[in-house]
Amino acid sequence: MNRKEVEPLNDLQRLTLHRRELHKIPELSKTLPKTKAYIKSVLDALDCQIIEVLESGVCAYFDRGKETTIAYRADMDALPVTEVNVCDYASTHQGRMHACGHDAHSAVLLGFAQYVDTQKELPHNVLCVFQPAEETTGGAKDICETGIFQKYNVSRVFGLHLWPFIDAGKIASKSGPMMPRSSEITIEVFGRSSHATAPEKGIDALFIASQYIQQLYDAHRAGMRPNPTPEERTIIQICKMESGTARNVISGYSTLLGTMRAFSDEDFAGLVQLLEDTAQRLSVEYGCRITAEHSEGYPPVVNDPALYQSLLPALRQGLDYEEMPIPAMISEDYSFYGLEVPSVFFFLGTGTGIALHSNNFDFDEKILVQGLEMYKLLLRQ
Amino acid sequence: MNRKEVEPLNDLQRLTLHRRELHKIPELSKTLPKTKAYIKSVLDALDCQIIEVLESGVCAYFDRGKETTIAYRADMDALPVTEVNVCDYASTHQGRMHACGHDAHSAVLLGFAQYVDTQKELPHNVLCVFQPAEETTGGAKDICETGIFQKYNVSRVFGLHLWPFIDAGKIASKSGPMMPRSSEITIEVFGRSSHATAPEKGIDALFIASQYIQQLYDAHRAGMRPNPTPEERTIIQICKMESGTARNVISGYSTLLGTMRAFSDEDFAGLVQLLEDTAQRLSVEYGCRITAEHSEGYPPVVNDPALYQSLLPALRQGLDYEEMPIPAMISEDYSFYGLEVPSVFFFLGTGTGIALHSNNFDFDEKILVQGLEMYKLLLRQ
Repeated sequence: MNRKEVEPLNDLQRLTLHRRELHKIPELSKTLPKTKAYIKSVLDALDCQIIEVLESGVCAYFDRGKETTIAYRADMDALPVTEVNVCDYASTHQGRMHACGHDAHSAVLLGFAQYVDTQKELPHNVLCVFQPAEETTGGAKDICETGIFQKYNVSRVFGLHLWPFIDAGKIASKSGPMMPRSSEITIEVFGRSSHATAPEKGIDALFIASQYIQQLYDAHRAGMRPNPTPEERTIIQICKMESGTARNVISGYSTLLGTMRAFSDEDFAGLVQLLEDTAQRLSVEYGCRITAEHSEGYPPVVNDPALYQSLLPALRQGLDYEEMPIPAMISEDYSFYGLEVPSVFFFLGTGTGIALHSNNFDFDEKILVQGLEMYKLLLRQ
Repeated sequence: MNRKEVEPLNDLQRLTLHRRELHKIPELSKTLPKTKAYIKSVLDALDCQIIEVLESGVCAYFDRGKETTIAYRADMDALPVTEVNVCDYASTHQGRMHACGHDAHSAVLLGFAQYVDTQKELPHNVLCVFQPAEETTGGAKDICETGIFQKYNVSRVFGLHLWPFIDAGKIASKSGPMMPRSSEITIEVFGRSSHATAPEKGIDALFIASQYIQQLYDAHRAGMRPNPTPEERTIIQICKMESGTARNVISGYSTLLGTMRAFSDEDFAGLVQLLEDTAQRLSVEYGCRITAEHSEGYPPVVNDPALYQSLLPALRQGLDYEEMPIPAMISEDYSFYGLEVPSVFFFLGTGTGIALHSNNFDFDEKILVQGLEMYKLLLRQ
């Protein structure tokens, strides 16, 4: 259709067009009809096999007659955030915004698909994966479960994410653990209220909750490895607490909300054990019910060390590349791909310092060209 | 005016009439125009000197030509409670209710004034004090500051309060401390929020607040007398806590609300010291501001031991009387009168178990006759 119009654009113009068209139409979670339609409209003009997966996912397979396939992944979904930026490509969907850069990720992958379309001789076949529901239910897992990686004999996966805390256009990654598993935790203490002057008739859920925090942190500190590496570091943090109804009635109920991070399944299991042991111990001590729940979250993002090392010389030579000294503490469902095949994930710097998920998130689209260049480079390794 | 109509009523009918008329028109705090008008309408028919004090207070002085005067006090104000009782004398003021029995206290004192009016030969003059703002700002203190006790040479004061936890019509009191000082406490911790994965950039107001509770209680326990009497018991209790805004952002602010009780000024000062020392210690340890505020509350209600002992034989002989084994843990601004002259305060049982301030508070008006009989008995001692 509009291939004739698009082709004369240079990379920056093309990537900017894709990003802005997607930025205008942010959609949430699994249901992304406009986003999918835009992506398909671009892919339809290319010589590739289009595979629709799940409700809104789209894959493009470029068969170059090779045994193995490299997969590239972009996430598609936006956030329930009201954009404050004023510009002609601002969100047209009230209360929804691409505030986490998934518009950029999809734009780079669309531009890359357009590039691959022009390269008939390549060392691998290419599978471009446009994935829904990164922010919500972990669409990556659903993609994996379709068996598409097996079907196309995918041997490695790459992906990228904008990152506000490195220079604009810079690429960064590291070997091994890059992001922890992130889990939401909720503790509830069911005590019994009584008048403040008759504490013997109550079970003080506020005091027990404060004991819970102390004992949880003490046990966490006691269980830490001596001199842990950044990848051995774990976090267990209670951030919000509510307890009690009045200043003169002993609290009968407390809630504690928090978060946990760990870079290995073993460490994560250890944190869960702390949560549950502390609840169990205080439950027995005070004769009340205490529940400690946690979400499974996404697995840690772990870059395959062998694959990473094999790429490193080319990354350093061909790109403005820096190796991350320590992992980032965000989480990503990209980790599910790494459980299937060797994978590496990359950060692409915005240089703005504007945090992901901010209602004023934005960036200079010139950086998208660096993302595209990296994808091209990875194609030849 | 309606003296001719009222006189034929017996005590129960008269007390019930007063109580129900007052129950229909609950008013709050210092501004009690309808309540004052009703009380004055009854007193106007009597041979006494009416003294209006403060905005809504009323006193009736019966001069019997004696050197000293006995004062009797009733509180007049109601509560911001919506009555759920359905009866023909239910509150006609939406959202306001005599849920603490002040209608009963005023009814007994009105009935007593009517009785005194018939007794021209008495061992003392009599001053009936109808006092506003017991529930709010401590109207008793304002009454004392008018100098009315000095003006009429008041030598002793009596008062009563309904009490749901003894048998209907039973009278109870004790020598010495009967109710503690009650103080509201508010602790604020001003930390600094940061992302949950960067705790080193924040000052965790939730953790510090939980430390505050632990250290406060530990210090309170450590400072307790061995085997304290009920009157040596003190209470310091945090009942409500809020901290944090999100599960993944370290809390920058906590509030703790609670209450303290003590039966002596020395013990109360000790509790205040604990509050402030704990704040100071943690403030230094964590480098953050912590404020610990408390209300002065009402002083403890302390019955004059000599006066009480002098009354005890008559109370036991003439009434269904029981001595309280331990103090009650409520508070009352009646305590201010005891700082002026020897005083004793009494409980009058409702026998219902329905707590003061409940929206279904009620009682059998027959008990009011027992209150009146006690006031008559005290008049002759």
